Amino acid sequence: MPLVVVGSVAFDCVKTPSESRDDVMGGSASYFAYAASYFTPVRLVSVVGEDWPDEYTKLLESRGIDTSGLEVVPGAKTFRWEGKYLDNMNDRETLDVQLNVLENFDPVLSDEFRRSPFLFLANGSPDVQLKVLEQCTGATLAVADTMDLWIKNMPDELAALLKRIDGLVLNDSEAKMLTGDENLVRAGHAVRAMGPRFVVIKKGEHGAMFFSQHETYVMPAFPTPDVVDPTGAGDSFGGGMMGYLAEKGNFEPKTLKEAMAYGTLTASFTVEDFSLDRLKQIEREDLDRRLEEYRHMLSF
Amino acid sequence: MPLVVVGSVAFDCVKTPSESRDDVMGGSASYFAYAASYFTPVRLVSVVGEDWPDEYTKLLESRGIDTSGLEVVPGAKTFRWEGKYLDNMNDRETLDVQLNVLENFDPVLSDEFRRSPFLFLANGSPDVQLKVLEQCTGATLAVADTMDLWIKNMPDELAALLKRIDGLVLNDSEAKMLTGDENLVRAGHAVRAMGPRFVVIKKGEHGAMFFSQHETYVMPAFPTPDVVDPTGAGDSFGGGMMGYLAEKGNFEPKTLKEAMAYGTLTASFTVEDFSLDRLKQIEREDLDRRLEEYRHMLSF
Repeated sequence: MPLVVVGSVAFDCVKTPSESRDDVMGGSASYFAYAASYFTPVRLVSVVGEDWPDEYTKLLESRGIDTSGLEVVPGAKTFRWEGKYLDNMNDRETLDVQLNVLENFDPVLSDEFRRSPFLFLANGSPDVQLKVLEQCTGATLAVADTMDLWIKNMPDELAALLKRIDGLVLNDSEAKMLTGDENLVRAGHAVRAMGPRFVVIKKGEHGAMFFSQHETYVMPAFPTPDVVDPTGAGDSFGGGMMGYLAEKGNFEPKTLKEAMAYGTLTASFTVEDFSLDRLKQIEREDLDRRLEEYRHMLSF
Repeated sequence: MPLVVVGSVAFDCVKTPSESRDDVMGGSASYFAYAASYFTPVRLVSVVGEDWPDEYTKLLESRGIDTSGLEVVPGAKTFRWEGKYLDNMNDRETLDVQLNVLENFDPVLSDEFRRSPFLFLANGSPDVQLKVLEQCTGATLAVADTMDLWIKNMPDELAALLKRIDGLVLNDSEAKMLTGDENLVRAGHAVRAMGPRFVVIKKGEHGAMFFSQHETYVMPAFPTPDVVDPTGAGDSFGGGMMGYLAEKGNFEPKTLKEAMAYGTLTASFTVEDFSLDRLKQIEREDLDRRLEEYRHMLSF
């Protein structure tokens, strides 16, 4: 079933302890859309400036992603993010952010996009996320991501959003900040009590946790020796997870758990190179093969 | 089959953000022995001062632990450790250490103990660990723990030990320090290349990783909302793991994986109260019940 994602598309400048890349394709919606495209038709809603290279759009389209919702603002510049990873490759510093076109991002979706049964509100301000949610009257499953900035600066808007969505995906540090609880098991359920039917806490190299009324579980990250650039891992996780749910067309507990596994494995490929470079090399069967390895790893 | 453990027995003073306890039973060998006692006959080798309360020894004996190797030094004091946990309950500061009787600990094992087929060298100086290993001519499986202090100060002795043991258990930060590699998958295999046939990296609240020539896997910690005091979690993990191996009497890949799971779950009970207080309340069937929950959690 079609899956629509609304979020950022960016130029990333990434420094790791051993290498760096400038002006590569980044952004939450790019990673999400590319990751989800292994599973289901994806509709991308975002904004770029006129500096955005046509080949980046073509790369997304090469995986069947519908980019008709990618607005190009004449005379304006694309969102830029610059970051640096510490030696542990799990923590990072943001060196520079230039919002540019993202500052006035006020997405208006086409009628077709509004009827998409699966909706992902990638990280963005909760008031924009709410506006999109109101447009998407056809969504049977709406899931959002958020970040520390909105937890600190827009708590009321975020609280309103949480009452309206089915699922929330956030980082461990954000879950602690949002709830004031340092224990992630309690924090996960406390976020759930704020509205969403399920909550996913992403722990970077340590995997992800799932919380619903009747279930609490942890899935470890796939142990890869080749962590080259963790940028986009969380968004790829979301893309793999939501893509699989949309493919299956349901969000039963069993499907959600399989979706958590696919999210984990999609992210495990993303970190093996810069930008989308590793995902560009794989097909769906590579994900399925790694899923079998992962299933074997977790059975005893 | 009998399992012998050589390590510390201590008075612990523990502060957590919400509570504290003074002079409770602690030490690597105490936690290890108690945890292992759910699975197999355990033989404890350690040393205490004349300030050691008889009821602490009796508590160990109540679980069938053979304490004939617990030396009491007249006129001397027991090893003391004082520590404080940070808000995240995963990081801690050591506030005070008084080695006391541990300073001159030079264990001499009885003939019966030397014939034990399973041996665990709990954290201690590698030269003492080597001396014990040389005595234990009956050991078919010898596993050791170590810590940052020995990695920094006794690298040659540690290297000699690593060439002689079958397995090493250590923390994530220690594995990084020992190998100079921040990627735990590479670090685990690098430690293995130093000698042991298998390596277990403990990641605290994030679980544990296993490395052998043919296998690499991660097992997440059991998600408990009740983390009261993490002291002894790593030693309980080791006790549950080694206890199960000794119970089965082999260390085949399948048994090792089940042992990793039992180690994980034994530790998950330990952290639910101070000292051995939570373990005191459980029986083997509580571990088995949690194992089934854990197995269900990891299957999809």
